[in-house]
Amino acid sequence: MNAKNVLVIYSGGLDSTVLLYHYKAQGCNVRALGVDYGQRHVVELEFARRNCEALDIPFTVADLRSLAALLPGSSQTSSDVEVPEGHYASESMKVTVVPNRNMIMLAVAAGHAIAHKCETVAFAAHNGDHAIYPDCRSEFVEQLGKALALCDWLPVTLDSPFVTWTKSEIVAYGAKLGVHFENTWSCYKGGRNGHCGKCGTCVERREAFALAGVPDPTYYTV
Amino acid sequence: MNAKNVLVIYSGGLDSTVLLYHYKAQGCNVRALGVDYGQRHVVELEFARRNCEALDIPFTVADLRSLAALLPGSSQTSSDVEVPEGHYASESMKVTVVPNRNMIMLAVAAGHAIAHKCETVAFAAHNGDHAIYPDCRSEFVEQLGKALALCDWLPVTLDSPFVTWTKSEIVAYGAKLGVHFENTWSCYKGGRNGHCGKCGTCVERREAFALAGVPDPTYYTV
Repeated sequence: MNAKNVLVIYSGGLDSTVLLYHYKAQGCNVRALGVDYGQRHVVELEFARRNCEALDIPFTVADLRSLAALLPGSSQTSSDVEVPEGHYASESMKVTVVPNRNMIMLAVAAGHAIAHKCETVAFAAHNGDHAIYPDCRSEFVEQLGKALALCDWLPVTLDSPFVTWTKSEIVAYGAKLGVHFENTWSCYKGGRNGHCGKCGTCVERREAFALAGVPDPTYYTV
Repeated sequence: MNAKNVLVIYSGGLDSTVLLYHYKAQGCNVRALGVDYGQRHVVELEFARRNCEALDIPFTVADLRSLAALLPGSSQTSSDVEVPEGHYASESMKVTVVPNRNMIMLAVAAGHAIAHKCETVAFAAHNGDHAIYPDCRSEFVEQLGKALALCDWLPVTLDSPFVTWTKSEIVAYGAKLGVHFENTWSCYKGGRNGHCGKCGTCVERREAFALAGVPDPTYYTV
């Protein structure tokens, strides 16, 4: 059987880095696509580029910064909306939602996959995302997968193996795969000196390592 | 009942112009979104802007030109691929396919619709598109509609009233609505002097007026 050709949507964050290692460990031909949608934490994409180089994976960035003006109102794309502190799954995190971000990323990724003859597009949505991001729900992913199966004459398969996992399960699995967690980025504030330790994704990250019983190599400024 | 808020994906072409008039005639609150994906025929978008001004419809252009490098190989986005002549529905037209173009457009449009509180996204896929564009098939549109219903906490509805219509049916309907067909653009070659009369969309356009028995006001250079 030929190795599967997989395009991984890759942010440089913890979850998608584990996903990248996952397909590498399975012997797949892996490509990676980063998305620059004008997020504050572009430091993520620098980690992404370095990790891909280390794993010998072709990495491309889709420049969607021009969409920020069309999709206003999120703290991820508007510098005048404050990044909230507190737990990732709380109501206050809703300001971090970029309208329809995942479908846009997946649609662009599928086009790129078709152009590069990858039959699978993979992304790292996980169980902890669901509370605030409607487009991380498994029912959304399932329906979009059916649309992707019809978007070209040859079906594109959507893989999201972590969609029912907790973040601590992803950390535990990543530890088994030998992921260099210190080279992954979660913080929404994107400071160059380290993770802020206070925003929702920092809180969630710390918690995930603690729950998984895996040493957390992250440098938090607080 | 409140008027429906509709975001129309609007290219300035014949079909989407009739769609714009359709929702206006129904008394909807209409917004329009053009997509600049680096297509050759940007003259379309000039028509789009003018028609929206005349109908008092807010018009925004999504700048997706940066995606051309990610989605290579189509005559619509690569200047080194020749635009084919002949019938629109023939095999040779496959070089005009931009990988996953419709899903990308619809995903961006849905994000824009959510940001502007439009509950409906509409686009003008029609029956004649199916032979060469997999993402104009009604089964694709149906599945994507189900995904759009889940992409946000409030469902986004996908409308494509022409998906089973022929182009001549759209022309006949547009004539009833008083559409100024001379202000719509179809030609894939995008010459400023007029429609080339020979590319697939010009051939299809001419045929549609003839079949509908509607006078064709288009200036064809051949």
